[in-house]
Amino acid sequence: MKTDLKSEVLTLRLWRQLYQTYTLLKLCENKTVEEYGLTTEQYAVLTSIGYLGEPARITDIARWLERSTNSISMIVDRMVKASLVKRTRGKDDRRVVYVSFASKGQKAIKPATRAMFDVVRKILLPLPHGDRISLFNLLGTVKYEMLQYLNPGIDVEKMKRDESKQAAKATKWLSSYGLPSIPQAKRQSGKKGRTTRRK
Amino acid sequence: MKTDLKSEVLTLRLWRQLYQTYTLLKLCENKTVEEYGLTTEQYAVLTSIGYLGEPARITDIARWLERSTNSISMIVDRMVKASLVKRTRGKDDRRVVYVSFASKGQKAIKPATRAMFDVVRKILLPLPHGDRISLFNLLGTVKYEMLQYLNPGIDVEKMKRDESKQAAKATKWLSSYGLPSIPQAKRQSGKKGRTTRRK
Repeated sequence: MKTDLKSEVLTLRLWRQLYQTYTLLKLCENKTVEEYGLTTEQYAVLTSIGYLGEPARITDIARWLERSTNSISMIVDRMVKASLVKRTRGKDDRRVVYVSFASKGQKAIKPATRAMFDVVRKILLPLPHGDRISLFNLLGTVKYEMLQYLNPGIDVEKMKRDESKQAAKATKWLSSYGLPSIPQAKRQSGKKGRTTRRK
Repeated sequence: MKTDLKSEVLTLRLWRQLYQTYTLLKLCENKTVEEYGLTTEQYAVLTSIGYLGEPARITDIARWLERSTNSISMIVDRMVKASLVKRTRGKDDRRVVYVSFASKGQKAIKPATRAMFDVVRKILLPLPHGDRISLFNLLGTVKYEMLQYLNPGIDVEKMKRDESKQAAKATKWLSSYGLPSIPQAKRQSGKKGRTTRRK
């Protein structure tokens, strides 16, 4: 019943939908982090450091953000001048560049992250939990198709395993940043997140 | 059964999934259009002109690409120098800037678009038709949540109606560009897309 043309149009509209969704996501991020004197790129670098742990290798930040080391280096240059991050070199290997928080970055990351969490929640929580899982998985399929297109012969299974490890790490990182929806006292008593689900 | 923390982690992972998907989409686009001497931004401007019709108002291109008029103006400046587009002013209102194809842009847009279609198909067609519809709709929900966050009080229903109109226009535009999966002869005889579904 479905014609070729309908299928083609759906495919192209979906592509555009992905594009638009991201453009809006970027605008939402921007609206949020600019209140903390940050650009979305600077915020992304700060969260990478928080997530990867201090000091973070610039190559790891680039990989995590799926950007080139060069472009991250340029962002870091400006961030050093703005006292957001500090740059150091490896003791054993001077070629390795590490980045850690500087005063202003350290001060901004926590409130900016909490504000970002609030926005992410505001936008994604209207979707039922099951829909969020579906969306996550469908995007995952598209993502792996793209990765295979970009890197033919890539080990997708290994990438999926790495992602699961990242998720575990993200949970830990998230707890360290404090979740406004989980009362501080409960988290500290070790009952991580064992409250009833918010809304 | 679901803890707050699990729900929070899913939400944040979904946000990152959206981010990653787009980053990869951009890389796929880049890999494709650079073979035609275009950047993804230039390609986006060219397709906007194709979609909106020549000459296209720079403000309409900016709206279609969800970018500021300023940033599109800067891209267009470089594209004029590269003989990709021509810029004209409105006869009645000199403040209105129009953009149309120049020689190189006209020459590149068709093969680049066909190549892009092929990549989009390659990446999205492995998803069953129903999954593509689900993904489209789920992204739509997220998109409208973001639009409401960015513009409180926005008329979402009107935007949805506008999107349907755009879809009709996209179908027309798509036919004019030729779909490799639909034999040329069939399309020209008026039996648009009435072939059996590809694959």
